[in-house]
Formats: sequence, structure tokens, C-alpha cells
Amino acid sequence: MSWTLAARAAKMNPSVIREILKVTEQPGIISFAGGLPSAKTFPVAEFEAACAKVLRSDAPAALQYAASEGFGPLRETVAADLTRHSAAAGVPWAVDPAQVLITTGSQQGLDLVAKVLIDAGSRVLVESPTYLGAVSAFMPMEPDIQDVANDGEGIDLADLRAKAGAGNGSGSAARFLYVLPNFQNPTGRSMSEASRAGLSQTAAELGLPLVEDNPYGDLWFDRPPPAPLSARHPAGGIYLGSFSKVLAPGLRLGYLVAPAAVYPKLLQAKQAADLHSPGFNQRVIFEVMQNGFLERHVPTIRALYKAQRDAMLQALAEAFPDGGDPDRSLTWNTPAGGMFLWARLPKGMDAVQLLPNAVARGVAFVPGAPFFAGAADPRTLRLSFVTPSVAEIHRGVAALADAIRAQQS
Amino acid sequence: MSWTLAARAAKMNPSVIREILKVTEQPGIISFAGGLPSAKTFPVAEFEAACAKVLRSDAPAALQYAASEGFGPLRETVAADLTRHSAAAGVPWAVDPAQVLITTGSQQGLDLVAKVLIDAGSRVLVESPTYLGAVSAFMPMEPDIQDVANDGEGIDLADLRAKAGAGNGSGSAARFLYVLPNFQNPTGRSMSEASRAGLSQTAAELGLPLVEDNPYGDLWFDRPPPAPLSARHPAGGIYLGSFSKVLAPGLRLGYLVAPAAVYPKLLQAKQAADLHSPGFNQRVIFEVMQNGFLERHVPTIRALYKAQRDAMLQALAEAFPDGGDPDRSLTWNTPAGGMFLWARLPKGMDAVQLLPNAVARGVAFVPGAPFFAGAADPRTLRLSFVTPSVAEIHRGVAALADAIRAQQS
Repeated sequence: MSWTLAARAAKMNPSVIREILKVTEQPGIISFAGGLPSAKTFPVAEFEAACAKVLRSDAPAALQYAASEGFGPLRETVAADLTRHSAAAGVPWAVDPAQVLITTGSQQGLDLVAKVLIDAGSRVLVESPTYLGAVSAFMPMEPDIQDVANDGEGIDLADLRAKAGAGNGSGSAARFLYVLPNFQNPTGRSMSEASRAGLSQTAAELGLPLVEDNPYGDLWFDRPPPAPLSARHPAGGIYLGSFSKVLAPGLRLGYLVAPAAVYPKLLQAKQAADLHSPGFNQRVIFEVMQNGFLERHVPTIRALYKAQRDAMLQALAEAFPDGGDPDRSLTWNTPAGGMFLWARLPKGMDAVQLLPNAVARGVAFVPGAPFFAGAADPRTLRLSFVTPSVAEIHRGVAALADAIRAQQS
Repeated sequence: MSWTLAARAAKMNPSVIREILKVTEQPGIISFAGGLPSAKTFPVAEFEAACAKVLRSDAPAALQYAASEGFGPLRETVAADLTRHSAAAGVPWAVDPAQVLITTGSQQGLDLVAKVLIDAGSRVLVESPTYLGAVSAFMPMEPDIQDVANDGEGIDLADLRAKAGAGNGSGSAARFLYVLPNFQNPTGRSMSEASRAGLSQTAAELGLPLVEDNPYGDLWFDRPPPAPLSARHPAGGIYLGSFSKVLAPGLRLGYLVAPAAVYPKLLQAKQAADLHSPGFNQRVIFEVMQNGFLERHVPTIRALYKAQRDAMLQALAEAFPDGGDPDRSLTWNTPAGGMFLWARLPKGMDAVQLLPNAVARGVAFVPGAPFFAGAADPRTLRLSFVTPSVAEIHRGVAALADAIRAQQS
């Protein structure tokens, strides 16, 4: 049988992370490797009540084919919440429900963006490092992905200007910059207010569209993050959001907000991709969100994850008392929200090489190198702090320290 | 803002059917236009019990991120059911659960097939006419779609040979033939046993992969259809199935079965597209299917749809007593299952022109022309018989006859 695969199939590869997770998901291993929300935060009783209510009151519609745009009341809720949150963050953004498209997880938003905006060879800019799932979603459309340096506060604007325009030899301008401003996966870092303002202005000057991914923005620990980039220039960006981190990933619901210049094509791509996201799930999520549920529920997630982060910071400080010396010790950042902490091994070490030794000592993490679209920093690693218990965090960090010291000596 | 769209975006257009449905979905209109299963067939109580059971027994896994392949027990059930059904149809097919990929509706299966098998300019063969949603899913990958004639029993093999090979000037062989053998959308027609055997053998000789779509196969009225094409040559085809017509579309779950030559790439495309289909929904469907539920439930759908088809056939026979003359009368087929009947207007008439006059008389249908990838037959139309009541079927067919006669006179 003559199966001739599309050229793009050669660019589809098993996720490196996924392959790593297979190795690390052994019984007894303390895993800082996963990217899973804590199942403790899933509002199970509320889901059960919502399922029953939807099926008793609205089954013929909930179980039927439906509009590709999504369930109207859910789109209105998304628009109202974004409008309220950005106003509270000081940058009013009047989101029209007509610009909201419900997606099958925010991952699907990335797939639709890729289909509508990427030709083979199109330059696409990403952060350094960036979310690997976005690269996986873009790759089938065969872009030329280039990473833009980070200046510690956010995108390095000089590097962005150098890489965004048509005048750098490639003949055409970058199609967009993909950016995850809040508690980024993999680094946990966030863009400052000044960095957002500068990026928004620079992107507008360059005519460079922004694709802003915000799965973690609600998971802040001490104060809400600055307003989204999309609020600052709604015509210049596509905003991606998710219910996975504030309710549950297993219903696979996210959304995007897109300006009129691209919404109709994203909608058509959505229709061709899966007709619509499950109408039943959309109604269940909508029901669960009634009466301000998220305002009561999300603070409990924030408190849990903050305590988990604190435990990891404490364990790291204990296990690496010389943590100030980046040549001799592990160093790490202090994420202000989200699920991940970013660490860096002592000089000369490589996280990929360390991993089997760490797993042998009972702890797993994800090496940072796969997250770099350009030159990788082999010393980096991602530590998720949300799923292990506090005791496991302490044991796991101690085991990680053992593995590092064994390799150092 | 400089939004540069991908070239493929120009090939994404609003579904013609969808636009037609907007016109026809007015209050008081009897609609033969939709492609919706009857909501009467949705097992609502069973869904409610299954939701509660899944959330009480398995919430942490059901609501969490999960494997892209799908929920293992559901994949096993799909494999076992396909194995049992094809054995009963006389062509043993041992489906391995490892070859089953759960998709977000079978529409997503078409999107994944397109990504993995179609390059820009690749020749893709379809039936004449064919399911429009498949064309919509294929178009973003920019194929050269060509239709193959139908000989009344199935694919015209001489036309297939002429169009499949590398030697017809286009320089390379067709990537696959997309075929919907059972109670096809839009025509309601089915391929005979002889036609399936001939197509399977010819495709194998030609080395032409088959993409076999079977959303309606369980909805037979008098006897089960012949065994699937994929059972006859599993290495040569991708099989697409759906839970939408036997349980409910609103959970958006389907599946594909693919040989080892393409499964890994389809899986990677799936992972990039939406990570995985909702794990909650997969468990709910699995629970509903326990204890042979479909063996009790699907016969009730068959009985309902058969009665609906009979009502439409009777109404047509009454409204068009000269139904034997294709020049002067509407003519129609007798589908042996599924949801659709295919009709043809008298000589010189055009279904697109007739539609507004029919809607003015209170009845809607879908013109057949949009379903043709090649030269269209403008006299054809698709009539869905599953959602209107029997009384509405009679009134609607009478109104259709009025509209036709008004245009004839």
C-alpha cells in the first residue's frame, strides 16, 4: 500500500516532554515533571450538579449539533469576565461576545491560529524559552520559528525589532509573536507592566500581530498580573484563554478572542476542525460558573499553589544553602503565580544528563532544553510544584540535591 | 495592524450548507434541510447516571489531562465492536485497540487525515457527490480534489483507475479516495457488496489508500450493510467512526482506526490539535455503552428513522403520482438506512432557484449542487427525514410539490 505522507508529517514528532514523562511516570517517583493541575482543585460536586441540571433542563440542545462559535451564554460570560478583569487591571478592554470563539482547549486555539496565519516558511516569533505545545501546534504549518531574547522583564524589544521586520533577509515580515505573559510555561516568569506597555507599543509600530496565551493568569499568589497585551491594542492581537487551570482540563474547553480581521477565518478553520466544541461541556462549565463560583473557587487554588510554591522555595533554600552562586549551586526563580519554577544547574552541568540520575534517586523533572526554539541553555530545568505533597516536595528536592552533588563530585 | 493571512485561508469559506440553514431555520418552516439526529433518540437518563457515576468513581482522572490516544477502555470497546460487527458481516477484521484513536467527533478525524496525507496540490479523490464537511476539512491543506463517478452500486472503477494513478498528467498518484459507503450524506445511497469487493481489490492493486467514513452504518432499516472496506484490507485504509448518530453529537466524540504506517503521525497531529478529546466525555460514553446498551438502544433509532423514511416515501408517492417520469416529476431514491433521501427535480429546474419558493411555502431542503466537487447536477436536492414529525413530513412534501408545480407552470 502506497501511503505517501504530507511533507509536514516529517515535522510532526512525538513531544519530547511526553517521552520524558513516560520515563519519569514510574511508581514511587516524586514528579516535578508534569504540567498537571492539582486534582484537589477540581470542583467535582459542582460538576455533578451542573451535569444533572443541564441534562434535566436543556438536554435536546446540549446533546445536539451546535454553532461553531460556541454556546452563546458562555461566550457572553467570557467577554464579561475579560472586560471586568482588564478594567480592574487599569486597561479597559470592552470585549464583544461576537469576538469570542469557544475552542476544544486553548491548544486548539493554537492550531487554528497556525492554520490561519502560517504559510510554509512564514517567520513566527516566540519567547526564549517558550511553551512547547505551541511549537507543536505551529510546526505542521511549516513555519520558520525564531526566538526572541528575554530581558528579564519581558521581550527584548531591540531583538524583537531585529527579527520582526521584512528587512532581515527573509523577504517578509514575521506573521506574529507568540507570547505567554503570565507565569509562563516553562519558566514561571511574568512580564512587568513596563514590559507589556513597551511590547504593545512596539508591536503596534511594527504592525506585528501578537498571539497572547493566558492559561495561568488567574493563578496569581499575591496580586493580579498587569492587564493583558490584547487589552492595550485589541485590533492587534489574538487572546487565548482556558478553563483547564481554574476548573478542570478534562472537559477540554478554552476560548480565543480575535479581532474582526481574523475572526471569520478562525471560525471557518474551527468548523472544519471539529464542527464545534462539546455543547454539553460548554453548558456544564457555564452552569458551574454561575453565582460567582470562580470568585470563591479560584482563591482556593491560588492559596494551595502558593503554599506549594513556598514549600518548594523553602526546600530549595535548605537543600542548596549556597544558592546564590550560579556557578556552584542550583539557582532558581520565585514565580509570582502559576504552576512552574525555573531552575539552573551549576556550571558545566546538563539537565538532560542529570535526569536519569535524579530518577534513580526517586525524583523527576523536565529538562529546559526542549523549550528553546533557538540556542538552548542545557543547564535549565522546569519544576512543577502543584501536584506533589509538601512532604514529597521536601523529599524530592533533597533527592535532586543528592543527584546534583553526586554529579559534581 | 498587518494581519497577513496564510494562503490557505483564502480556501476556507463559510459552509454553503450552513449559510442555507441560516435562511431556512425560521420559525414555522418545516425543515428537511438539517443534518441533525432526532433529539428523541438521545438517552438522557443514561447520560445523567453515567455523569454521576464517572464523577463519583473516577473524577481525578476524568477531569485531568490525559493520553492523546484516548481512554483505554473506550478504545478497547471500539475495537471489540468493530471486530464483532465485521465478523458478523462475513469479513473478519481483528481490530487492535492500539490502532484506535479517539477524536473530537469524526470531523476531527478528517482534519487529522488532511494534515497527515495532503500536501498543497496533492490529488484527493472523492465520491460524486460527497460529504461537504470532508471537503471543508481537506481544503485548508490545499488539495486538488477530483470526484469519481458513481455507477449506481458504488464507485465507477474505470473512472477510479483513470484518476488514481500517476499517469494522468499530474505527475503523482492520488493520496487517497474518501468514501462513505453506508447511507451516504448527502444521497442516502449505499455501496453493494460487489462494489465494495471490487473497490477494495482495485484500490489494493492501485496502491490507493482509502479513507472510509462510517457515521451512519448502524442506522440500517432492514438488514446490516455489507462489511466495511477497511475490514477487507486493513493496511490500506483509515476507518472513521462516530458516536454522534447512535448516542449524541453534543459530546463530540468519534474515532479512527489506522494502520501502523500512518497511526503515529495521526496521533502526533491529534496531540498538536487539542492534546486529547475530553476524558470526561469518553468515560461517560463508555459507561453508557456498558451492559450492551447500544444493542437495546440503536434498534429504537432504526425503527424511528425507518418509520420517518416510510412516511416521506409515502408522502412523496402521494404528492408526485407521476413519480416515474424523471423529466416531468420529482424522482427520489429509497435509502436503506441513515438520515437522508436524495431527490431530483424535473428537467430544466434548479434546486437553488427552487429553494426560496419552497421556503415561502413553508418547507426547506438543501440543494444538491454544493455536494459535488466536480460538475454539479443542479436538479438534485437532499431531504432529511429524521427530525420533522410524520404530519410535518406530509405537509412539507405537499408544500414542496406546490413549489415545484408553481415553477413548472
